[in-house]
This record gives sequence, C-alpha cells and structure tokens, in this order.
Amino acid sequence: MFSSVLVANRGEIALRVVRTCRELGIRTIVAHSAADRDSAAVRLADESVQVGPGPAKRSYLNIPAVVEAARTRGAEAIHPGYGFLSENPEFAEVCEDEGIVFIGPPADVMARLGDKAVARGIMRDAGLPLLPGSRDALDGPDAALALAGDIGYPLILKAVAGGGGRGMRVVHDRADLPAAYAETRAAALAVFGDGRLYLERYLESARHVEIQVLCDGHGNGVHLGARDCSLQRRHQKLVEESPAPGVDPDGVAELGEAAVRAVLAAGYVGAGTVEFLYDPARGAYYFMEVNCRLQVEHPVTEMVTGLDLVAEQLRVAAGEELGYPQSDVTARGVAIECRVNAEDPTRDFRPTPGLVTELDLPGGPFVRVDTHLTAGYRIPPLYDSLLAKVVVWAPDRDGAIARMRRALAETRVVGAGVATTAGFLADALDHPRFRAAEHDTSLAETLLAPAEPRVA
Amino acid sequence: MFSSVLVANRGEIALRVVRTCRELGIRTIVAHSAADRDSAAVRLADESVQVGPGPAKRSYLNIPAVVEAARTRGAEAIHPGYGFLSENPEFAEVCEDEGIVFIGPPADVMARLGDKAVARGIMRDAGLPLLPGSRDALDGPDAALALAGDIGYPLILKAVAGGGGRGMRVVHDRADLPAAYAETRAAALAVFGDGRLYLERYLESARHVEIQVLCDGHGNGVHLGARDCSLQRRHQKLVEESPAPGVDPDGVAELGEAAVRAVLAAGYVGAGTVEFLYDPARGAYYFMEVNCRLQVEHPVTEMVTGLDLVAEQLRVAAGEELGYPQSDVTARGVAIECRVNAEDPTRDFRPTPGLVTELDLPGGPFVRVDTHLTAGYRIPPLYDSLLAKVVVWAPDRDGAIARMRRALAETRVVGAGVATTAGFLADALDHPRFRAAEHDTSLAETLLAPAEPRVA
Repeated sequence: MFSSVLVANRGEIALRVVRTCRELGIRTIVAHSAADRDSAAVRLADESVQVGPGPAKRSYLNIPAVVEAARTRGAEAIHPGYGFLSENPEFAEVCEDEGIVFIGPPADVMARLGDKAVARGIMRDAGLPLLPGSRDALDGPDAALALAGDIGYPLILKAVAGGGGRGMRVVHDRADLPAAYAETRAAALAVFGDGRLYLERYLESARHVEIQVLCDGHGNGVHLGARDCSLQRRHQKLVEESPAPGVDPDGVAELGEAAVRAVLAAGYVGAGTVEFLYDPARGAYYFMEVNCRLQVEHPVTEMVTGLDLVAEQLRVAAGEELGYPQSDVTARGVAIECRVNAEDPTRDFRPTPGLVTELDLPGGPFVRVDTHLTAGYRIPPLYDSLLAKVVVWAPDRDGAIARMRRALAETRVVGAGVATTAGFLADALDHPRFRAAEHDTSLAETLLAPAEPRVA
Repeated sequence: MFSSVLVANRGEIALRVVRTCRELGIRTIVAHSAADRDSAAVRLADESVQVGPGPAKRSYLNIPAVVEAARTRGAEAIHPGYGFLSENPEFAEVCEDEGIVFIGPPADVMARLGDKAVARGIMRDAGLPLLPGSRDALDGPDAALALAGDIGYPLILKAVAGGGGRGMRVVHDRADLPAAYAETRAAALAVFGDGRLYLERYLESARHVEIQVLCDGHGNGVHLGARDCSLQRRHQKLVEESPAPGVDPDGVAELGEAAVRAVLAAGYVGAGTVEFLYDPARGAYYFMEVNCRLQVEHPVTEMVTGLDLVAEQLRVAAGEELGYPQSDVTARGVAIECRVNAEDPTRDFRPTPGLVTELDLPGGPFVRVDTHLTAGYRIPPLYDSLLAKVVVWAPDRDGAIARMRRALAETRVVGAGVATTAGFLADALDHPRFRAAEHDTSLAETLLAPAEPRVA
C-alpha cells in the first residue's frame, strides 16, 4: 500500500479521501487553493500545500502545480476526487511520466472512454444496449439533420467531451436543430475546449440508473449494484439511492455483469460508473456514458455493500488484486443520499455564498454526513455549491425516506444570504411519485413548475 | 402505533428517542429540567414541558411531575430512556394506573428482575450458569462471613437494588469483609434507598459479555447477539462492541437462546439486556444481572443488525407482535462505540463541566454520532458526564478499530476547563491486548496505573 497520497481536490471529497487514508495509515498531503487554506480537509491532513489562488484554473486545474506539489512532498500517488482533474487523461499521463500513481484508470483508457462517441462504440461492441444515435462525432449541422431524420425527435445533442450533466441540449423539432447545434458546439468549446458533438434519441420519461464497477489491474472486476439518480434538475443529480427501486434485480445483475465485461474489455482499472437510461415502459436500459472516477453519490453504494470505495480504489491502484468474486458482494437494505447545496430553490437555485454562522448537522441512527462545512465556514463563490451529502440507511425504502426526511429536518445552515436545498429535497422525497418509485428525471422540474415565473 | 410519546430523559438518549419517533410520525413531548430547557432534544421535539428545576430528584426523578406532564399533554406512552426512572417499578406502576403505556417491561417483572437476588434465582431456575454466591439477600455481616467461607475470596458484595456499575465492592480478604459490608450497605441505602446486599465469587480476569434481548407481549422473543463491554473503569463502561470478539459464536448463540428463554419465562416484554461475566480461561459464562431498559451501548447492536431498537421498543410496547423469528436476525461486520465523557483522564477522570466554545464531531463513512452537544452548549455539573457516543462500523474488527481511532482524532471539544476522554479512549483501543481481544475488565485500570500518583 502507498505510504503517502496527495489529495488533489477540495470540499467534502478531499476530506472523504483524507479520512480513509488516515484509517489505512497513509500520510496525506492536501493540495489546495488559497481560498481553501482553512478547510476541514487541510486541517485533518498530515500536510497541505497551496498550489495556487482561488480560481480553479489556477489551482485545482493547474496540472504543473499539482504535480510539482506531489513531487516535492514525496507523494507516491494522487487521488483526484471527482471533477477538476479527475477525468483528465493528460493529467493522468503526466502523473505516469513522473512516476506518481494516478488513482484512476490508465490515461489511454480514460481518453477513449472520455470521448463519448468512442465510448458508445466500445460499449456497443461489448454488447451493451444503446439508444439510436451517432456512431462517431457529427461532421456538422447537416450531418446532424440527416441522422436526426433517421432517428426522429426529440433527440439530445451532447458534447463528445462532456460529462457531469453539462454540454447537452434536447431538441424537439427539426427547425430548432441548426441553432441548437451551433449553441451546444459553442458551449462545448468554451467549457471543454472541444466542440465535437454527437446525438442520440431522447427519452422523455426515463430513469437514470448507473452501475458501480470496480476493477483491479489483473483482469478482475465486480459490480457493486445499481444506483438510481433520477431526481435531477437540469441534468444535475439531487438525490441518489441504492439499490435502484422498482426495477427487476435480475435485470440489474445482468446489466452489472455486462458493464463489468465491457469496462474490462476496455482495459479499465479502478472504480468507475457505467450510466444508463432506463425506460420503465419497455423495461429496457440504454448505455449513456462511463465516468472514470469516484462519483459524488458513491456513499449509497458503500452503505448497502459495507465497502469503503476509496479504500478499494487505493488498493487496486497500489497493484493489489481485488481478492473477492462477484458472489461475495452482497447488498443490504436501502441507502439514500441528498445533496444539500448552497442554493436558493425560491430563486431558481441561485448559489448563495456567504458566512455560515450557525450549523446543525443531522446525526443518530444510520445517518452519515459527508461535509467540509463547519460553523464559521465562509462558502466561497468560486466552486460548486455542494455543502453536505446527507446519507441514510434503512432496511427498506420507506424507512430510508422517513429517516432522510428526519435528517433533513435536523439540518440547519444559518448565515446572512445563505440558503440551502434541504427543504426542497425533503418535499421532493415526499412526492407520491418518488415514494412509489414511479418518478423519472422530470420529477424535480415538475415540482418546481408552479413556482416558475409565469408570462402574464 | 402510538400517536404521541413523552420522553422522560435528557441528553443524547432523549434526542435518540425523539429521532426515531419523528421517523415514525409520532408526536414527541420532551419532559425536561430547567437546566435542559435549551437542549437539542427540546429543540427537535414537537413539544416540551419543564417538569422541575435542575437537580434530577426534583425533575427527572420526580414521578408525579413526569406523569402529570404526560397526562396534561395527552401522551399515550412514556419512554424513560436509561437511568433516572427507566428501571423504577413504582414509576412503571403509576403509568399503568394512569393508563399511560410505560415503554419497558411490566412493573412486576421489572421489580422481580431489579431485585438482583431474586433475579439470580429466576435465572438459576431457567438454567443459566451463575457464579457461586447468595441465594437470597444476606441476613447480615455474619451470614456474609459464613457464606464467604464456603465460596472463598476474592468475592464481590453487591447491592440487591444496584445496577449500572454502582453499589458494589470487591473483597480480597476475610478481615476486610465486615467493614466492606457496612460501607456497601450504607452506600446502597444512600443511593438506592435499599441496604440489602448479596455476594458472589469475584473473577479477577473476566470479560463483560451481554446479550441484547427483545420480547413482545405475545410470548415471542429473540436475541440480537452479544456485546463486549470489558473496557471499563470502576465498573463504568468506556468502550463497547458487537459481536463479542474472541468468543465462540456457537456459544454466544446458545447463551442468547438461553437468555431469551429465561426472560420470557419471567414475563419480560420489551428490549432488555442479560449481562454475563465471561471467563476466557474456562470458556464459561456466568449470569450477572438483567437490565430492564435500553442500554447506553445499544447502537453497536443496531449497527450490526440493521435494527432500530427504539422503534422495536415502541412497536412491542404498542402491542405489535415481533413478527420475525430468530433466524431472520443477522449480524454483519463489527461495530464499536466509545463513550466520550466530559472528564479529565489526567485528573482521575474528574468531571469537567463548562461552556463548549468550539466543537468538531467526526463524520464520513460508517461513523455515527449520538450526541446532544452543540457549539455553545454549557455542560451542566448536575448530570452524568456523557457528551457523545461515537459509533463506527466496519467489515472486520481491525477496520473498526482503525476507523474509531480516525473518528476520535476528528473529535474536538474546546472550552475553558473542558476536557474529554477521547484521547484516552484512542490510546486504549491501540493497546495490544485490546487489539488482540485479549483484554478483560482490568485493562483500563492497567492503562491508568503509570499515571497514578506514586508514594515516594
């Protein structure tokens, strides 16, 4: 096992990684921006090193600075968390060149799976079901129009380099396609530096179901069941749960085995997630993308399987064999995670940075909180608005929903101008469609519809 | 199920009960002293009622005031937590007379099991193994001397009405017995209002192993496995874990079944604990006492079984059937609880009341914290010194110890004059004998010995 790991991230996930490293006796070095110098992860790490000023481009995304920090502090490996450099093949390659272990899949595997068009091809070849769509990146708006004519509307345009719910647009009508193409391409260029697009059929009423996979460097892989992340707003996940409710467990097991076969065939090593759309009407799954990193929502999988996914990542990155077969992976009960964000649901989820003056976090039976938040913490305007992941476990889904509503009711984040999504999430969990597991990715927007401004 | 429950307790356990009631949709009324009017349990309850001033005798032990609070607020049931009135048969009887459900065993069952001498007889008749000792309460110091002559030394003198580690004294030599008898009797009279004593052989090197039982009012009962609570200081538990390490699981299963048979034969209803001494040299268990209430350490059982013990208490108190057989109770992994007390280990564990100005509680994977503590909380000098129960779970015991040490290292309670036992507990967990599960009830004292003042 590594004796030292540099954590190249911030917020709750940096703290999450530090915690597991401490349990394993691994020295931690947190690479942080100037804005995060007083953060909980920095406080709990063995060492910290400031890699740049607040803006992520100059710190968390600054590859030379991060690698230099690892080199000078003698870190044997780098954990990239999620976001930032976690799915950047160039970063993984620089780490490999420097003799530092990148905790994630090999750079070339990440590059191929990170290209959404290439990934579709790999998964199609491995026998995973896909929605009708591009085989490769689109050649331009005319090619898009031609293909769309075959597939039909609505369809969804996506950036080849996209991910995390960004760089995508739904098109309902042929007339809108050229403009949508131009705008999505421009946005993709601006955000990802890569304007290539692909398209696929858009399912109006679908569930987001994803498979957690875990592979070692010796050709062994397992899946850790499914998560449902259908409660989303503008393609951003709000609530996640495992197992996926209201789907056939045998179907999930088959899907999981197919996902493991597919990523192993692609040379995958580490923890990863294969995302699918699930069409409840047809009982059919369609491959969406592979995320080559730990997901924000990994705790729900931990709560039902009993595994520590960061510890598993470290083990396989250090060259250990997985050491257990699929049949040893068992799930117990139901876990739900709510992302409590510093956003104001009454104002179109506008971020609410500011000073947290009073803080109550939930606790007690079967409640887990992953957060960097402390009383006196100033929520910076620079980064995403995730404040805390509240995770609960219960023997059954009704119990988990009741427990989560109790936990959210205990959550109190007070500060001038600071608002959170806790109350909105509690309402969403109470919706009859969520309770019955008959919701889809449109539920959150439905809930918000009455509050939207109306045209007079 | 009840529509309303009065919680007749304070601190973390009052909050613990409120949490489960909220999840079950039960209206909660917290009966509190003037000193606890701003407590977390009061804040989270639906209602609260002040039943007297700070001293427990005038509030938490004031039966007429507590019953009156329940009556006027229309509470259908009273949860007594642990300590205070939780094992007071008179209180249970008054509740029964008032038509309020006491959440615990029937008053007469509690009275018989609460009399340690009677309980020994009941358990002997049910076939549980006992240490050689009194059949009944001792008639006086001469009777004690005569019996001690048969049993041999060391022996332990215990108050018939004792419990919770109070009202007992070890006697190593015949010459010390008369004085020890007089002093223990005086202390028992003062603390419990009942000076009757009994004695039994004292095991110098024993483990404390206890069985959690759960019985409904229809003659059904299960056990939820064993807890080891051997890390004690002056008969006060410091660290508890489940399952009991280093013992034969088949032996625990047999012991558990015998314990259930015994308490069912005594008419038991509710959650209870049958405590044993375990002699590792002989592999033998000896009955100590039955605790007719929820234990402080119940969370470790919850973490391995997945059950919510307070919810189970409420269900069976409301007349529901248990609804599952012993074979449905399964344990997974290992849970450990540390009691973080406001005590100074460098000053003979002197209580350290005071204002908590800064507070960091642990979180993250598989960590549960049960606490009423918040930044700005003033630890009162009036009550016991339990601040927080830090509970962790892991697939195996080594992992749980590492996780607990990580969690304790995150725990920071700062205030003028305030000290905690967190660091002492972390050291204890790191002791080779604890790590090897070869510790006994003397380990904590051993750890403290070098720090004791020496005679020059």
